[in-house]
Amino acid sequence: MSLLVMKFGGTSVADPARIRAAADKVAAEVGRGHNVIVVVSAMAGRTNELVNWVSGIAPFYDAREYDAVVSSGENVTAGLMALTLQQMEIPARSWQGWQVPLRTTSAHGAARIVEIPRANIDAKFAEGMRVAVIAGFQGISPEGRITTLGRGGSDTSAVAFAAAFGAIRCDIYTDVDGVYTTDPRISRRARKLDRIAFEEMLELASLGAKVLQTRSVELAMRYGVPLRVLSSFEPTDDTSGTIVCAEEELMESRVVAGVAHSRDEAKMTLMGVQDRPGIAAAIFGPLAEGHVNVDMIVQNISEDGRTDMTFSCPVDQVPRAGRALRAAQEAGAIAFEALVADTEVAKVSIVGIGMRSQAGVAARMFRTLAEEGVNIKVITTSEIKISVLIDRKYMELAVQALHDAFELHAAG
Amino acid sequence: MSLLVMKFGGTSVADPARIRAAADKVAAEVGRGHNVIVVVSAMAGRTNELVNWVSGIAPFYDAREYDAVVSSGENVTAGLMALTLQQMEIPARSWQGWQVPLRTTSAHGAARIVEIPRANIDAKFAEGMRVAVIAGFQGISPEGRITTLGRGGSDTSAVAFAAAFGAIRCDIYTDVDGVYTTDPRISRRARKLDRIAFEEMLELASLGAKVLQTRSVELAMRYGVPLRVLSSFEPTDDTSGTIVCAEEELMESRVVAGVAHSRDEAKMTLMGVQDRPGIAAAIFGPLAEGHVNVDMIVQNISEDGRTDMTFSCPVDQVPRAGRALRAAQEAGAIAFEALVADTEVAKVSIVGIGMRSQAGVAARMFRTLAEEGVNIKVITTSEIKISVLIDRKYMELAVQALHDAFELHAAG
Repeated sequence: MSLLVMKFGGTSVADPARIRAAADKVAAEVGRGHNVIVVVSAMAGRTNELVNWVSGIAPFYDAREYDAVVSSGENVTAGLMALTLQQMEIPARSWQGWQVPLRTTSAHGAARIVEIPRANIDAKFAEGMRVAVIAGFQGISPEGRITTLGRGGSDTSAVAFAAAFGAIRCDIYTDVDGVYTTDPRISRRARKLDRIAFEEMLELASLGAKVLQTRSVELAMRYGVPLRVLSSFEPTDDTSGTIVCAEEELMESRVVAGVAHSRDEAKMTLMGVQDRPGIAAAIFGPLAEGHVNVDMIVQNISEDGRTDMTFSCPVDQVPRAGRALRAAQEAGAIAFEALVADTEVAKVSIVGIGMRSQAGVAARMFRTLAEEGVNIKVITTSEIKISVLIDRKYMELAVQALHDAFELHAAG
Repeated sequence: MSLLVMKFGGTSVADPARIRAAADKVAAEVGRGHNVIVVVSAMAGRTNELVNWVSGIAPFYDAREYDAVVSSGENVTAGLMALTLQQMEIPARSWQGWQVPLRTTSAHGAARIVEIPRANIDAKFAEGMRVAVIAGFQGISPEGRITTLGRGGSDTSAVAFAAAFGAIRCDIYTDVDGVYTTDPRISRRARKLDRIAFEEMLELASLGAKVLQTRSVELAMRYGVPLRVLSSFEPTDDTSGTIVCAEEELMESRVVAGVAHSRDEAKMTLMGVQDRPGIAAAIFGPLAEGHVNVDMIVQNISEDGRTDMTFSCPVDQVPRAGRALRAAQEAGAIAFEALVADTEVAKVSIVGIGMRSQAGVAARMFRTLAEEGVNIKVITTSEIKISVLIDRKYMELAVQALHDAFELHAAG
């Protein structure tokens, strides 16, 4: 019998009525003949409440106890979902992470999945169970303690179960109805994509499209598990949502799949840095230790043995970055003439696997921005992505112009 | 090193501030040189919330899923308590039922404890841990599923751990400061008892003194674990609370330890019942099947092969009892002339192990009530208890008069 994995996030199981609505979607898939593994998050708001209690008690908490506390939210939802399905006369039962057991490393709070043995759940499917409900986000360490998988952990759980059980697909139910060519709040011409390649989704996720966690997409790509992102608040049919799949399963070929943006960026420039081997490590080592998430990095042409080093980071990390760099300077690890921060920038990116085989995409992007009078401050590129840092006030304009220029409103 | 078990109920761990106050009491015992096993309930109100969700979804729920959901409240408290203790620099960690493992039967919702292996917790004590924090009320079945122990389950967990680990005492912290000679709301002369025998506590618990669950007292008596009941909201010293212990450890000898009451009782009488062998079974079988908690039973003298059968039950079960008996009559299982319910009665009892060796206690009780003009409707006795059913309006008067007559205000 074919197996489907369905994952419901916190807003999709926020109360018993929503759990019932989610269960209706599970029942429909059972009716289509699938066995189903349902992975659930905690009811919306619950995990934050638990996290706040922990942080309030102990700012530097024991991560093992944090995991024991925070994982309880998913256990509640899993039991309630199983009960709801049983009430609909669908044979179902719940599993907590340790019961599967979903074995992880001991890295509490950010554990990696090691193994998901199938025996326990397969035995129940063999007895006639149709739905296994799994408390997402959690596992068990070699020491027998509860672990959690970190941010987006339930998505990761869902994909891992899909891989372990050879599921035909992993459906991620959330509060949006799919992946769009760009943020519909910025461009009314944004269009839902029917399909998108894993690689494109990865770039979009890391660029601020908050639909799927990067880690779950990576896992799906590695194991070739097709993902579908769709809304739990709308009726489901064959055209619902967006399917994230391998490049060769895309129906269409297109140059650009979407335009992403990230509003709260900052650009920092170290001026007059001595240009010597190892200088990049000397600069970015202290930033990493200071927990600064450096994104784009540009090194200017060297003159007289001195250069300027520019990087971007989230705007709220600017003070932290400044402290780390000045401390490194005082310690004699680096030398620079000035540190300049521009906190009024945003990042806009175009993403598409078609770029790999098509020339002139970057030129078209830069020309479009120039025609709108948008000055580009920093450029970085990857195989399937071009990102630019621009003044924040032009962000919406730039997104709209690029969306139009690459004709993303028209179905590929 | 001596080991102490401390149990904190829901109101004692209702929020992080109260958890901190409870942790202070644990820290004081660690400071006195004890290792401690702390057993915690869910934060007040949490379990009810979870139970309501389950009942709302499925009136006839799968008890295994109920247990998986409802046990989550204790897991949260256990983790938060461990974190609070660690923050106070006391080496502590939490255990959920399955981690100990506290092995139970598979009777979900009312599981019996089978075994508590000491190895895991002892190993951590040997490593220098001073406090093991246990999520109360829960265990694991032979099938590997989470079980709960039913009403008062955390008290039962605490006593079971005290027995398994040879604790010097099991301290039950709650919202009252001990066991009283009677309800202080009824008699201002009520006095806190320093000590009480297990047998007396059992009778008082089952008679409506809500301090300790019957089951935990039975378990303590069987394993000879001294209990101390005390308030988590008042400072603790050597005279705090009431110690529940074996009869031979009582300092004093007294006839009556306390006066108990139960307000919402009903008296039901089946008139003109055919007096034949098996008639009691024919009557009380259907009542048991109808989930009527029959308490006192009195059969009157038979005349002409007919008798009256009187019993008491909680007043809110009268309609249920009536339905069960009339159904049995219609089915031809029993025959009676009339069914009379008196829903305006209360039960008052005196309890004391000294009764066993002292004559005239019953006579003194009945004389006291007669002097106050209180008519006795039903009497039952056990070795250490005499209960009477009286008009509810005289309940307070009867309690006060008996408390005075047996001089319970004076320290024994």
